[in-house]
Order: sequence, then C-alpha cells, then structure tokens
Amino acid sequence: MLYTSEAIESAIESLSSLPTIGRKTAQRLALHLLRQPKEDVEKLAHALLAMKERVLYCSVCCNLTESDPCPICTSQKRNRSVICVVEEPNDLFAIERTNEYFGLYHVLHGALNPLEGIGPNELKLKELLHRMGNTEHPVDEVILAMNPNVEGEVTTQYLTKLLKPLDIKVSRLARGIPMGSDLEFADEATVSRALQGRVSL
Amino acid sequence: MLYTSEAIESAIESLSSLPTIGRKTAQRLALHLLRQPKEDVEKLAHALLAMKERVLYCSVCCNLTESDPCPICTSQKRNRSVICVVEEPNDLFAIERTNEYFGLYHVLHGALNPLEGIGPNELKLKELLHRMGNTEHPVDEVILAMNPNVEGEVTTQYLTKLLKPLDIKVSRLARGIPMGSDLEFADEATVSRALQGRVSL
Repeated sequence: MLYTSEAIESAIESLSSLPTIGRKTAQRLALHLLRQPKEDVEKLAHALLAMKERVLYCSVCCNLTESDPCPICTSQKRNRSVICVVEEPNDLFAIERTNEYFGLYHVLHGALNPLEGIGPNELKLKELLHRMGNTEHPVDEVILAMNPNVEGEVTTQYLTKLLKPLDIKVSRLARGIPMGSDLEFADEATVSRALQGRVSL
Repeated sequence: MLYTSEAIESAIESLSSLPTIGRKTAQRLALHLLRQPKEDVEKLAHALLAMKERVLYCSVCCNLTESDPCPICTSQKRNRSVICVVEEPNDLFAIERTNEYFGLYHVLHGALNPLEGIGPNELKLKELLHRMGNTEHPVDEVILAMNPNVEGEVTTQYLTKLLKPLDIKVSRLARGIPMGSDLEFADEATVSRALQGRVSL
C-alpha cells in the first residue's frame, strides 16, 4: 500500500475513476479535502448523494429534472409547437442561457457514432418520434442543434430523413463566424460555411 | 437557476470548490455521475466521508494516518536516529517509493512563505524540535528534503540555523541532473548545482 491509510487509498481510487481526473489530481484532491473542515467534506458527499437520489430524466423531453415532467415541459409560457433537439443536457443549458428560445427541448443523450457502437437505439429517438404523434399539441418545427462535428452531422442527417416524411419543418442552427472572433483566425471550414450561408441585407 | 434541478446546482457548486476544478469541469463531473450507477456515486461519497472520519495526523511525525502513532513511527524496522523532513505527505510518499530510505519522517505541512503569511508557527516545527529532545531514541541526522524552490530554500536555511546548534548532523538532498534527462536540456540553475555538487570518482 502506497499510503499509510486505506481510507485515503480508496478515496483516491474513487476520485480517479472520474473523467479528466488522473491519479495525481485525485491525490491532490484527497489531500485538499483532508485539510478542509469536516462540514465541507460532508457537504460535498451529501450533495452528490442528493443529486443522484433526486434527479431523474423527464419522461417527455429526457432532460434532467427533479419533477417529472420537467419544468420546461410543463411551463405554460413555452411554445409547444417547436422542439429543439440537442445531444446532451449541457447543450440545452447553452441555449437556455441565450434567453431567446421559448420552445421545448428534446435531449438525445448522445450522437450517432457507429465506431463506438452508438446507433439509433442508444439515443432517445423513440421518445422524440412519440412526441411527433402528439395530436393535442402538434409539432410544427424541429430545430436540430447538434454539435458541428462528424457525429453531430450524421445525427442531423439521420434525423432529417426521419422527420421530413412526417411533414414537419426541420431546421438546424446556422454555421458561421462566431461573435467576437476575427475572420482572419477562423478556420477554412467555418469561413466556407459562413459564405454558403450568407444572408442578403 | 441555470439547471432545472437544485440538487445538480448544489453538487456542481460543491465540486467546483475543489482545487483545479472550475465550473465547466464540475458540470462535466456532475453529469458523468448522473450517468453512473447509483452504487458508484455512493461509493465515492462514502469513501470521502470515511477518509475524513478515519484519517488523522500522527502525533509524532504529523503524517496522515489511521492509527496514532503512524505505522512508520511505530515500525521496529525503521532507523530511529534519522529523520527526513518533508513539506507535504505527498513528498513522503515520493521518498517511500524509492524503497531505499529506512529512517523516520517529519511532515511540516507547508514551507515558509512570508508573502502568504506562512511563518514558523504555521508549520509543524514545534513538533520537530520536541523530537530532537527525545533521550530514549536520540536523533543523529536530520535530512532536509524540501522542494527546490524559493520557499523550500528559505525553509531549509531556517531549519539549518535551528538544528545546527543542537549538535545534530543536518543534510539535504543532492541537486543535479535528473536521471533519464539530457544534459543539453537541463536548465542553467540545475547544471550549475550539478557542477558545484560534483563527486570525485
């Protein structure tokens, strides 16, 4: 045993099983926690347990929530005819931060990636198609907000093929020069997309 | 509230209070934990709580331990006349990994750093001096194994002044070219120290 205490060893082991945290960082975190007051460590441990205990997936949009359906799906202020499809909950929060989107969401929990064995069945696609058949609140438009990488592109194409026959307007986020950046420093693919998607003034 | 769940928010807040973990990493960790089986999250939380509960400081060498005095201080195989002084528990483990040191340790829990308000009273110096007065197991040599930076140097000098009058041999780790590296790529300070500390063959 490297450490003089089994308790430290198992804490380091648990911490280093987290993504982006290696053995060295886990050691530093464990020694940091040992220096902190007991209340702080308890707060962290209980916050993790409470999160795991209370958070579930919304049965409508598959977003993380404490109440099912989630506050966005039940909100009366939301436009129920538009659904924005995102890969992960983090993407949903990125769009919410704009304060400019008032439709609903659907979280796929991933993108198609045949190399890693992620096919249509691994994503929340069944749930999305089920929502398309909702006669009480018909869906007019689906906005595809996948990440601009290979997996995102493939997922966008797959969803387009899936949704178009249902006679629903399918759109996707614009690609172009990000705000605050320099044209000079943008990569070729981005400039090329910005040219293709140019807007008449 | 950014997230649709208070429980996620407070877990992210607790996680991002850890060193080297910012808000974005904390978000990623929280979402990762939500995807893991409940047992894994419980294992992590309980490991942290158990560590905080069971680990204490050895009353002799101030190292982290579950039993006081620690296994190193109570070991009969250790040479009780040599004490290696280190800054942090991690430094102790670095020396233990060599499997070539069989004396005792003393962990200072820091290095002198007047700019950050860390003076002699903030370090475990009193405990070290107390050990020097042990008549049952007299100390012959103290090895100073501070880090090779300004704070470490200052601490080394301070300890040397403190221990020399007690008629104890005081030594410190050799400075020089690290094994496996190239002379060509070593910095000037390291080469200079290696020259000064050259060994006759």
